[in-house]
Amino acid sequence: MSSILATELESAVSAVHSLGEMAGVISFAASGALMAVRKRLDLFGMVVLACATALGGGIIRDLLIGRTPPAAFTDLTFLIASIITGGVLFVIAPSRQTTRKALEYADALGLGLFCVTGTVIAYSSGLGAPTSALLGMTTAIGGGVIRDVLCGEVPEVLQPDSDLYAIPALFGAAITATLLHFDLYQSWTGLLAAAGAVGFRLLAHHYHWHAPVARHITNF
Amino acid sequence: MSSILATELESAVSAVHSLGEMAGVISFAASGALMAVRKRLDLFGMVVLACATALGGGIIRDLLIGRTPPAAFTDLTFLIASIITGGVLFVIAPSRQTTRKALEYADALGLGLFCVTGTVIAYSSGLGAPTSALLGMTTAIGGGVIRDVLCGEVPEVLQPDSDLYAIPALFGAAITATLLHFDLYQSWTGLLAAAGAVGFRLLAHHYHWHAPVARHITNF
Amino acid sequence: MSSILATELESAVSAVHSLGEMAGVISFAASGALMAVRKRLDLFGMVVLACATALGGGIIRDLLIGRTPPAAFTDLTFLIASIITGGVLFVIAPSRQTTRKALEYADALGLGLFCVTGTVIAYSSGLGAPTSALLGMTTAIGGGVIRDVLCGEVPEVLQPDSDLYAIPALFGAAITATLLHFDLYQSWTGLLAAAGAVGFRLLAHHYHWHAPVARHITNF
Repeated sequence: MSSILATELESAVSAVHSLGEMAGVISFAASGALMAVRKRLDLFGMVVLACATALGGGIIRDLLIGRTPPAAFTDLTFLIASIITGGVLFVIAPSRQTTRKALEYADALGLGLFCVTGTVIAYSSGLGAPTSALLGMTTAIGGGVIRDVLCGEVPEVLQPDSDLYAIPALFGAAITATLLHFDLYQSWTGLLAAAGAVGFRLLAHHYHWHAPVARHITNF
Repeated sequence: MSSILATELESAVSAVHSLGEMAGVISFAASGALMAVRKRLDLFGMVVLACATALGGGIIRDLLIGRTPPAAFTDLTFLIASIITGGVLFVIAPSRQTTRKALEYADALGLGLFCVTGTVIAYSSGLGAPTSALLGMTTAIGGGVIRDVLCGEVPEVLQPDSDLYAIPALFGAAITATLLHFDLYQSWTGLLAAAGAVGFRLLAHHYHWHAPVARHITNF
Repeated sequence: MSSILATELESAVSAVHSLGEMAGVISFAASGALMAVRKRLDLFGMVVLACATALGGGIIRDLLIGRTPPAAFTDLTFLIASIITGGVLFVIAPSRQTTRKALEYADALGLGLFCVTGTVIAYSSGLGAPTSALLGMTTAIGGGVIRDVLCGEVPEVLQPDSDLYAIPALFGAAITATLLHFDLYQSWTGLLAAAGAVGFRLLAHHYHWHAPVARHITNF
């Protein structure tokens, strides 16, 4: 990687970081807070779950690429944004029906943004494109898995009735890694990749695109 | 950080380590073993849960600050203390009522001790005061979260009926980080911070200090 | 460690890696996929759970010894093998009775292989024998714990009715560490250690070797 590319990439990363990463954090914080509402947690439970969901994916990514301590512990803007998001949703107090819809959208938005930013951060730390794509997918999925496990639910990424989940994240991460590999990654192509992943996830959810179930299972 | 401070801090860390850390490990090992009794696990399940609870928070902390392998894997005294604690509680076999009370106290003691030692260890590895406080809180909460998730329970830190949990840990960690930042950290001030966190947690539990619940939840 | 030993050890590691590690990955991938069948997950859920189970233990081990990014993210053969295993089991679609039996055997095989390879990898990264044995046991147990937690089950390592689980893993890891410590580790002694751990686990399961339960629990 030439130093010019490294510099360009760095500024691209920092641009994505300051906007996409923050938007992803707020989206996942909202999804955690909304899940907390569904689980009837109190204000503190809401804030803790918002933070764990919003920061969990990035913490896992940073541990996996050896960036310690993770950004979530050194750059407190992400933590503060998560706390504020949790607090705002506590005050707004959406209705049950709104909560379900909003949770879907917030989760899809976080998924799409994090699969791109996660891939970029992994790639900019010197890893190859395939490894970066896998780490991007892991970042995108991680926060939601933590949220669901903490709430005692089977993670959405596994549930057969939650439609495609990992595939849109892998899709966005793979596109991002390909763009990076061929020096085509820019802010707007990154945004397109994120939009593609979000759209893919929402379409999958809306039209209930399912993977098949092993045939014998119906006989259980 | 001057080398004199570093040396002083190191001896402070080592003093806290050998006493506070061990007391925290034993407290959390007891809380894990007592939870195992409530879940009707056998002797090995008790010992495994005692170890996971006692060592989990510190392992997470060490991973987050990049200290690999974590102390729990290199200094076996913590592991041995956890195993012995699990074995002793197996032999003592407290009654159901005693178990509940003892679990509360052991958990509060571990929480208070670990939020202080976790903060000190993070700070002594060169991190800033706010980051160290967050890592201290994470250390204190981590073991209990692992214990509860392994047992299939929603972690106490999230449950609305378990009263304040993260706040006392953050309180103790923030005081410790402030003491460290202003060169006021000594064994006795650290002990005071731990005692404050333990007292805060026990008072919160005794008087059921609750965070408010989002108003609409009552309509669910 | 002399450089000759290091070279020998490296080749031993690489031999174990390419065969034992792959066999362990496939075994645990199968156990994850079979658990997915029992939980009625769809094809993607099967593949995700297969990958998480097969790669989870090794990822935890690599994080604990500071090898980042973990091998599972850089050497994609393990990931591909896990995906294929999940897909094959989807097509085969074993019956419910077969699934239960196969899950037991796959899990025992993965446990025995990973406690050996995990210990060898930890030892070859320069850690002492006791630490390596603990890391080997953690590697062996980790994947199954992740599988069970993701499915909302209490991990097998804790369940009183799942017979000895951690002990066979510790047994195999301790033998491997002893062999390594006394320069007696070779491919065939490593295989013997793995076979011993697998046999121990299967015997424990077949004859229901239980640890005792605290006496008061019967009064609960």
